[in-house]
Amino acid sequence: MITPASLAAALAAVRARRPLVHNLTSAVVANFTANALLALGAAPAMVESPDEVAAFAASADALVVNLGTLTPGRAAVMRMAVAAASTAGRPWAVDPVGAGAIASRTEFAQELCRLRPTAIRGNASEILGLAGEAGGGRGVDTGASSDAAIVAARRLADATGAVVAVTGQVDYVTDGAGVVALRNGHAMMTSVTGMGCAATAIVGACLAVSGDAMEGVAHALAITGVAGEMAARVARGPGSLMVEYLDALAALDCERLRVEVRGGGTG
Amino acid sequence: MITPASLAAALAAVRARRPLVHNLTSAVVANFTANALLALGAAPAMVESPDEVAAFAASADALVVNLGTLTPGRAAVMRMAVAAASTAGRPWAVDPVGAGAIASRTEFAQELCRLRPTAIRGNASEILGLAGEAGGGRGVDTGASSDAAIVAARRLADATGAVVAVTGQVDYVTDGAGVVALRNGHAMMTSVTGMGCAATAIVGACLAVSGDAMEGVAHALAITGVAGEMAARVARGPGSLMVEYLDALAALDCERLRVEVRGGGTG
Amino acid sequence: MITPASLAAALAAVRARRPLVHNLTSAVVANFTANALLALGAAPAMVESPDEVAAFAASADALVVNLGTLTPGRAAVMRMAVAAASTAGRPWAVDPVGAGAIASRTEFAQELCRLRPTAIRGNASEILGLAGEAGGGRGVDTGASSDAAIVAARRLADATGAVVAVTGQVDYVTDGAGVVALRNGHAMMTSVTGMGCAATAIVGACLAVSGDAMEGVAHALAITGVAGEMAARVARGPGSLMVEYLDALAALDCERLRVEVRGGGTG
Repeated sequence: MITPASLAAALAAVRARRPLVHNLTSAVVANFTANALLALGAAPAMVESPDEVAAFAASADALVVNLGTLTPGRAAVMRMAVAAASTAGRPWAVDPVGAGAIASRTEFAQELCRLRPTAIRGNASEILGLAGEAGGGRGVDTGASSDAAIVAARRLADATGAVVAVTGQVDYVTDGAGVVALRNGHAMMTSVTGMGCAATAIVGACLAVSGDAMEGVAHALAITGVAGEMAARVARGPGSLMVEYLDALAALDCERLRVEVRGGGTG
Repeated sequence: MITPASLAAALAAVRARRPLVHNLTSAVVANFTANALLALGAAPAMVESPDEVAAFAASADALVVNLGTLTPGRAAVMRMAVAAASTAGRPWAVDPVGAGAIASRTEFAQELCRLRPTAIRGNASEILGLAGEAGGGRGVDTGASSDAAIVAARRLADATGAVVAVTGQVDYVTDGAGVVALRNGHAMMTSVTGMGCAATAIVGACLAVSGDAMEGVAHALAITGVAGEMAARVARGPGSLMVEYLDALAALDCERLRVEVRGGGTG
Repeated sequence: MITPASLAAALAAVRARRPLVHNLTSAVVANFTANALLALGAAPAMVESPDEVAAFAASADALVVNLGTLTPGRAAVMRMAVAAASTAGRPWAVDPVGAGAIASRTEFAQELCRLRPTAIRGNASEILGLAGEAGGGRGVDTGASSDAAIVAARRLADATGAVVAVTGQVDYVTDGAGVVALRNGHAMMTSVTGMGCAATAIVGACLAVSGDAMEGVAHALAITGVAGEMAARVARGPGSLMVEYLDALAALDCERLRVEVRGGGTG
């Protein structure tokens, strides 16, 4: 499904085309998300005014909707952005932060999923929650391993038409039919807030330069996993991991990706 | 009141039980606050929708209400969260950012204090302002040393039933009767935004695992002071201090705390 | 116009007087902006409640209005703050994030410019957009070099009475009559979100201690350029650049500024 060559091509395409990724995200992770996209070579923008959001979503190269610190006002803006991106044919991704753990969050995430997102990325609890199963999540943490959510992810992909990614110790990407497993990343990444959110933003960037959603999502998770691993090798703790992760996204080259990526076959 | 052994036990309990700390805080410090809690081993969540906040506050292990960038809408959400946490018997802490310097902020902070928080942590100007005295604060800075606010802190503790902490060169914690003085920390910490806010969030985490509020608050300030000092030893300036502080919170172990803590007796 | 001696005096004045800079800015850059001001030696505050903003803007030493993630509610608060700062005779600066690329943003930026700000700082696309010319911007990026916006900047300065700065590979500062060119900084700074926003915040700090707006703006851009260059020499990528930049702002001394600054003559 993805190969070292396709992955290298995706990275080169992000750097060359510098896709404009429109993020509707929380204040907690907005800075880190923007910096992750910039470090990789994409162009982030956080436009969230009801006046501006539809036109902007239609003109950007991809839209990423992150449910962290959702409010009714933010939900309304997200609906406008999603409608505009869909109509304009732009790829868009959902990060269902807190789905499964907070009832109103689960409902809104399910509403978005019915609008046919290009991709959905969450941890096991979020994907289980979205699929209507109990996932053991509490707050924004997951209580389950990604393996436990593969079946739910396939079902969610079938039901929504989206490519669904469950990230964890192993990352799984599925379009309902095939499943790609990616085995990069590092446990220390769970000690930094917004690592998953940044991954979804990078999914947006890769979708913008990819003709195939399954490939785009898998490329993004391979990139974030390899960068996270590079960072974890030199980090002394979560503070330096965050810094090293941004440096690694910028330092990443095609050869490095080719050598370091683990996984990518269909499961 | 607190001993090296009780401190070590508190750190171990945070790591083992991973308390879910619900933060209502400003966009300025949300990322750093979440990362400080994660680095220490607690689980942060920032849920602020009127739809979600009451149920979430009732289910989290502690609530922390931070008045930075307060707005009427945020104040309303804080009232809902505080009511729910109180009813559910959860510990909750107030960080009265800007009290004493901004009149409406002082009033709202006083309103919250009448709702019987478990703990209040502020700098000298904020505690003086809350107690109705002129504190010389300007914006979010303090114009006074923590020593100058000990009497006000005791009075505030008596009036509210809260454990009150005044942080500064020396940190004081009081329940009205006794006063614990803690002498860790470093002046460079005042050059990083959100250091006090992160300390209050860690107060929330320690209250969640402690049977005694006075101990919980003192443990939290000892942890943040020791981590700040460890960070200041290796930092080259405020940017690296922020990074090293998160690394230190994660690296902190019980033995290190035992050796480094200064203070803890009643004054 | 500015000399090594005037620059050194400006830095010393910021450190000695610690001006309180009131920032109305986006959640994306709020933390970095506050930390940049603290690192330099100024006092940041982010007060944005309709209840508090007018009184606070009137009492702070400078106001900085940043249009990132503008919403109608934030625009209303900005109008209140600007009116109060103007009436109180405080210097205020506009950062027209996204002007030229987003129509409603351009209009609001132009509205603010008619209120006679002390200074305006933007990239080439934003300044061209404000001046009513097509600037090739997309999102918050610039599509043009700063040289291309010098004429527009002079025109904008003439029309508004503001000192206008266009930042880029070379930074230009103009009051309509003279133009100062500053040649510090580093290309890697464009890979960190909020570098321009932090520069505008530092413009606020320098305006607060300067009797002359042209000098204040030029001093601020010299300081940010020199600090950025110092940081880029030791950074390994955008993550470490952000950290090193804050450390450099704190480490900067008058002698270093004198040696490193390039430019400052009138063009």
